[in-house]
Amino acid sequence: MIGSVLIANRGEIAMRVARTCRELGLRTVAVYSTADRDSAVVRFADEAVHIGPPPVKQSYLNVPAIIEAARLTGVDAIHPGYGFLSEDPDFAEVCEAEGFVFVGPRASVIAALGDKARARRMMAEAGLPVLPGSENAVDSTDARDLAHAIGFPVILKACAGGGGRGLSVIRNAAGFTQAYRDARATAAAVFGDGRVYLERYVDNARHIEVQVLADQSGSVVHFPERDCSVQRRHQKLIEETPAPTLPDGLPALMAQAAVDGARGTGYTGLGTLEFLVDEDSRFYFMEINCRIQVEHPVTEMITGIDFVAEQLSIAAGAPLRVRQEDVRASGVAIECRLNAEDPRLNFAPAPGTLTTFTPPGGGFVRVDTHACAGYVVPREYDSLLAKVVTWGADRDQALARMNRALTEFHVGGNGVRTTKEFLLEVLSHPAYRSGEHTTALIPEILRQSNRPPVMTGA
Amino acid sequence: MIGSVLIANRGEIAMRVARTCRELGLRTVAVYSTADRDSAVVRFADEAVHIGPPPVKQSYLNVPAIIEAARLTGVDAIHPGYGFLSEDPDFAEVCEAEGFVFVGPRASVIAALGDKARARRMMAEAGLPVLPGSENAVDSTDARDLAHAIGFPVILKACAGGGGRGLSVIRNAAGFTQAYRDARATAAAVFGDGRVYLERYVDNARHIEVQVLADQSGSVVHFPERDCSVQRRHQKLIEETPAPTLPDGLPALMAQAAVDGARGTGYTGLGTLEFLVDEDSRFYFMEINCRIQVEHPVTEMITGIDFVAEQLSIAAGAPLRVRQEDVRASGVAIECRLNAEDPRLNFAPAPGTLTTFTPPGGGFVRVDTHACAGYVVPREYDSLLAKVVTWGADRDQALARMNRALTEFHVGGNGVRTTKEFLLEVLSHPAYRSGEHTTALIPEILRQSNRPPVMTGA
Repeated sequence: MIGSVLIANRGEIAMRVARTCRELGLRTVAVYSTADRDSAVVRFADEAVHIGPPPVKQSYLNVPAIIEAARLTGVDAIHPGYGFLSEDPDFAEVCEAEGFVFVGPRASVIAALGDKARARRMMAEAGLPVLPGSENAVDSTDARDLAHAIGFPVILKACAGGGGRGLSVIRNAAGFTQAYRDARATAAAVFGDGRVYLERYVDNARHIEVQVLADQSGSVVHFPERDCSVQRRHQKLIEETPAPTLPDGLPALMAQAAVDGARGTGYTGLGTLEFLVDEDSRFYFMEINCRIQVEHPVTEMITGIDFVAEQLSIAAGAPLRVRQEDVRASGVAIECRLNAEDPRLNFAPAPGTLTTFTPPGGGFVRVDTHACAGYVVPREYDSLLAKVVTWGADRDQALARMNRALTEFHVGGNGVRTTKEFLLEVLSHPAYRSGEHTTALIPEILRQSNRPPVMTGA
Repeated sequence: MIGSVLIANRGEIAMRVARTCRELGLRTVAVYSTADRDSAVVRFADEAVHIGPPPVKQSYLNVPAIIEAARLTGVDAIHPGYGFLSEDPDFAEVCEAEGFVFVGPRASVIAALGDKARARRMMAEAGLPVLPGSENAVDSTDARDLAHAIGFPVILKACAGGGGRGLSVIRNAAGFTQAYRDARATAAAVFGDGRVYLERYVDNARHIEVQVLADQSGSVVHFPERDCSVQRRHQKLIEETPAPTLPDGLPALMAQAAVDGARGTGYTGLGTLEFLVDEDSRFYFMEINCRIQVEHPVTEMITGIDFVAEQLSIAAGAPLRVRQEDVRASGVAIECRLNAEDPRLNFAPAPGTLTTFTPPGGGFVRVDTHACAGYVVPREYDSLLAKVVTWGADRDQALARMNRALTEFHVGGNGVRTTKEFLLEVLSHPAYRSGEHTTALIPEILRQSNRPPVMTGA
């Protein structure tokens, strides 16, 4: 039913989607901004259409240009990747109205779940545990009253947020009004929507998520949970599956919650429910990502399933091809995101021209990247350069392979810095090695490395 | 027990071995010829020792230089890779005499099985089926008499041969004496040993092999069979596992034969028994490779086992860590050898400097290579540039991924030509796609492509 796909994205995920399309015999159309005209997917896709200059509003968020490209090339479907238009209900609606299959959930579901406060409410109604907080967007006064009722710390989240942006932790009553104002201003600036809601904030939490596939007839299948607790500024750096050191029984409870949540909200396609697990191993729904996630390859590596292929199958209206009893996971997979950033400069983007780019190879290693030697890392987009994924029969083996793979990864360039050494440092940290690390790990490592050397007496 | 390893090889297999050593926390020592001084393994290994100029006798076959390097660096073990000294019993003996663990079978076993006529006899004694032929090396008169008794075609094989070299097919009695003389001369030139033996030659055969692991206490485990029928001049180009379209029951019979053969000859370590399967699905032992093979990654991909790690474990004297009932194979894996050769010039080596080298990435793809952009492909060594391995839940999926992966592989350079397009042609050939191809496939494709275009009347 789907014979051709336009990929409304860029970077590694555009290549990722194009690869599966090619394997399935589907014609692929890439779209690209002027800054990406020499990118890998432009060469790899069957056709490529220029959609505008680098500012994302004029290219990767430029709905009329993308729809026009789809019309010109006569594609059947549009795959949005992640970020950009992937969770924009208007885009999903325009695609369908113009006769293109949108590879994602229905527009109405994206709209409902894209309002993070509303998603929280819907999931609570579906029986999922949520943290104490506001039912809806709150004004300053209500927020402060609620914070006092719940107890500090609390977190303000942009209703229109997601992907770890628009989050503001408030640790005590002093300066609450100012913090609230800042959070609104940030939300308005980043998402064009200043509404915020409030929740209790949990220190030393683990970020655990459950990916599901749901078809249009209401069947839902879940996959082994992923641990994404290694984050800086709420951005994931290292992900793994299954999550290490969770108490017996907890993964099954979270999987059931994810299925209940997907079913209760009429979800279709590939999606991920993100949960927070506190120090007492209680879990709470945080948000749902209505799209493929950056870290999906770890799940592909332990299950042998191609999730882009499953997305396309569901979008074409087919029933789920994967039954729960067929999901057989083997071993452990870990993903590291290699970003073009300078860890010594607070992870500031470090774009430039790659003179050397030799990704690791060999057994049980997967690399997803759009870069190559000679590639100009553009300053206009996010800094993800490559994802390195390793598999092992157990966590120690997967970790040993990740160490080896990162060590082997040679990236050099004019102006380009990467997170490679920082990732290696995290991988060797005792808390990470124990598998009991929380989202507090990276802040802790940064605090340690910024600390002046301790002088010891002779 | 083994804490450090010298890798007595070069190219992709040196990197392959070094990767596993690194993952196991073993110190690695690379040796290199002058032509390989900028190679990947020289940078990747913990230490690297120059052992001589490019002629292999002065470097990769230079036993005193390699032993001296091992002594200087104080390693515990020496891994020979494949080719070069890997099946040289004298080298194995010197290693042990000098106090280094040789990662391979005992020298006496290599010596016995390295004489191909003797190996044939030993396997027949162990109950394995062999083709009618000579028990030992034969002189010209005996060979001719035997050929007449067996019936043509026959094949003369160098007793000291292996790896597809030193083979000479004789289709009829005319010119037999000359053919015999040529075969002896070739054997003497290539292997320094002119002895040849004779076997019936089977047209349209399939090359099927069974890899085993055997420990020093006599335990033997076998792995799913590999089909290596895609060969040109007896050199494998494409390998896959499990073999497609074999009759029910045949794989189990061949596996048992392999175990019997390994046990009957006191084999230890990793080895592969090569069989020929005729058009009536009868199988015959051909030879045993007493080393890791180029195509071992396909088996790693369907089993999740790292065979270099198993080699090292057995060499250290440990019992097999893999039990037969633990060998769980999943899906299908295919390997393509990308060679720096010009298929239009009868696969003549096409070395030079790589200006572009972008291996494929993404899911279910493995690449083993020592090359990178800027690498100078030396003219002194074999032309293997990279191995591309893909996995699929079934053969069609593995094939679709191989097509995609090869398409995505960008190699360019001054003087460098590759087999990429030729491999894609083979992959799309109906006989290959059917899975019923034999060793006759490549000669047939070459005949077709060399044939002038057929003129059809209007």
